[in-house]
Amino acid sequence: MTLASRLENLGTETAFAVSLAAAEWTARGNRVYPFHLGDMNLPTPDNVVDAMNKAIADGRTGYCPAAGIPELRAALAADIGDARAMPLEPANIVVQPGGKPVITKFIQSLMNAGDGVLYPNPGYPIYESQVEYFGGRPLPYRYHETPTGFAIDLDHVRELAASGARALIYNNLQNPLGCESTPQEMQAIADIAAEHDLSVLSDEAYFEMRYSGESTSIASLPGMADRTVILYTFSKKFAMTGWRLGCAVAPVAVAEAIAKLNTNDESCTTHFVQAAGVEALRDPSGAAALLAELRRRRDATVDALAAVPGMRCARPDATFYVFPNATEAMTMTGHTDVGEFATAALHETGVSFCTRRHFGRPFDGETEQYVRFAYSGIDVDDITEGLGRLGEWIGSS
Amino acid sequence: MTLASRLENLGTETAFAVSLAAAEWTARGNRVYPFHLGDMNLPTPDNVVDAMNKAIADGRTGYCPAAGIPELRAALAADIGDARAMPLEPANIVVQPGGKPVITKFIQSLMNAGDGVLYPNPGYPIYESQVEYFGGRPLPYRYHETPTGFAIDLDHVRELAASGARALIYNNLQNPLGCESTPQEMQAIADIAAEHDLSVLSDEAYFEMRYSGESTSIASLPGMADRTVILYTFSKKFAMTGWRLGCAVAPVAVAEAIAKLNTNDESCTTHFVQAAGVEALRDPSGAAALLAELRRRRDATVDALAAVPGMRCARPDATFYVFPNATEAMTMTGHTDVGEFATAALHETGVSFCTRRHFGRPFDGETEQYVRFAYSGIDVDDITEGLGRLGEWIGSS
Repeated sequence: MTLASRLENLGTETAFAVSLAAAEWTARGNRVYPFHLGDMNLPTPDNVVDAMNKAIADGRTGYCPAAGIPELRAALAADIGDARAMPLEPANIVVQPGGKPVITKFIQSLMNAGDGVLYPNPGYPIYESQVEYFGGRPLPYRYHETPTGFAIDLDHVRELAASGARALIYNNLQNPLGCESTPQEMQAIADIAAEHDLSVLSDEAYFEMRYSGESTSIASLPGMADRTVILYTFSKKFAMTGWRLGCAVAPVAVAEAIAKLNTNDESCTTHFVQAAGVEALRDPSGAAALLAELRRRRDATVDALAAVPGMRCARPDATFYVFPNATEAMTMTGHTDVGEFATAALHETGVSFCTRRHFGRPFDGETEQYVRFAYSGIDVDDITEGLGRLGEWIGSS
Repeated sequence: MTLASRLENLGTETAFAVSLAAAEWTARGNRVYPFHLGDMNLPTPDNVVDAMNKAIADGRTGYCPAAGIPELRAALAADIGDARAMPLEPANIVVQPGGKPVITKFIQSLMNAGDGVLYPNPGYPIYESQVEYFGGRPLPYRYHETPTGFAIDLDHVRELAASGARALIYNNLQNPLGCESTPQEMQAIADIAAEHDLSVLSDEAYFEMRYSGESTSIASLPGMADRTVILYTFSKKFAMTGWRLGCAVAPVAVAEAIAKLNTNDESCTTHFVQAAGVEALRDPSGAAALLAELRRRRDATVDALAAVPGMRCARPDATFYVFPNATEAMTMTGHTDVGEFATAALHETGVSFCTRRHFGRPFDGETEQYVRFAYSGIDVDDITEGLGRLGEWIGSS
């Protein structure tokens, strides 16, 4: 069988190769410190599991509506609307098997072939993959490092938007950068979207994964609700990554289009998992303990990285990632290729992490080197031990 | 936001409108006999539920590989291979959130825009929807009624294949017809596929839902494994429709392409649901009781329909559908439109069912009228009572 030519434009998550390398290194009898995972080694709260089992006992093992069970759509409309201070109806909510499906469904619903789509780079690689797969014109926009983290290069966004764009993907509380917009930056993005009449995908996967301050959705800014689709997921807040439960929040006509895609693609999201989602929103107390643990890990990671020679990073208030500048560390260890630096670090210290290259093609003229540490899948003691080894290796190189 | 133009080519399952009409009629205080559902009102076997909970207790709530957990891929390769007498490796298996996603992933992987794709009509409406959505040339092929059910119009298939087709969708043990191919018919389809070098999607959702005889997969015929993708699902055999668990069985290169689509679309299928699938295959004893109950319903349905004036149907050996010819019944009740006939039946008797129109656009010159009764979601007593009322209404018209 000859594969269809559209597959030539399909990207993937190259970070899986890092998982594979770590697994192989472990299998050879080595200790690995897993900072490469965007996954969580924390249990889902008990009340959520119990609610799922009650749903199964109640016979909720059959098909359910493509857009989601009414109770969950209502609960999500109330919860997401409250958290973002914006009015939402159940008709704005389309349940999905995870947050990720919102990316392809946004692209399919709102981008024609040939349309330009802006998206962050470094950023989640599936944005670019889906834009290119469905024949869009990729318009990756830059960030620059600041004393407190990273900021969007707004001039770059303006320039790309003026080149004839149709849509913009915005990931505040950003993976992999761990950064967030100032109110001014978010307003500037909203202004650009309004000026160029862009549809916006606001990837809010980490909206509630923050250790101080409060999150704001770009959809809640004046005039933005009508042009924005929010990606929402249960994955991080409730340690439910493998449950596959999330939703799109969208204007009703877009929500209906996405629900029609659901009917064609997966029929519906697992019925009893949706019932578990209702309980998670009803009693979210388990999420606080998860967040407290992640804060301890954030502090352990940032504190330990401060002692690693040649690396510098800010202390992000949100997400579970840090994205240190490793340029000097690479010089110290004699590496010019960030992928080779990561492989050497794994083999010399067992510390496994992704690099800037896993989150998009570097721009011409990029000179600084970055790596990503995720602390969602590794305990505090291992964080300290692993990063201690990393620092020793770099310092002794 | 202006919706993307590709959505104009997206179809849906219009049968959901029948569910809605039935629900509205129930809400108005009427008794409804639900023969419209392709769903099951039977519980999933306990051992499957227990295995899922053990997996959750074991911490299997995180992400897992896009192609599925290794244990499930191995179990599926063994089970599907045994049942079809064909050698399969885990690398041939790509787990999906249900059987349905295999349809879109087959189309995306193997059909270029402009390619002709043959598919059954009457047939599952998502075939046509996905062919048209991804820019293919729809080539629906006909069936004709026989004394024992329905047969594929092979001349029609040959004619369409000769018009320049790239792929063929084959649904033996057919929804909505309830029919199956003779060995000769299956071989003829295989011969046509070979002659015109067609990729084949073999939708085997009902492979194990049979009351006598044995099922054969077209993929097991000589030369066919290399050109066939099998759609497999846990939905029917284990009453797991709402769990969303199935897989594609494909040559390795196609399986890899489909796994890459998984990475882009849903990341992975719900982790602990996959563990439940391993147990279902390890101890499938619960499936026998489900099948025995469906056989009782099949007999009750066919026996009761035999007493309904103006309807005729065979006694299918497989699926949980019957597709009676209702031409004479419509004449007796004074209807020329099969949709109006179904609405009148609901309002006069409470019996709710789909019609031929929910499974594709009628061909020019189609004169006979058909309706579909599903007996998977209704108990034996209600089958007998409902169809008794239907017969009284038609007989007294």
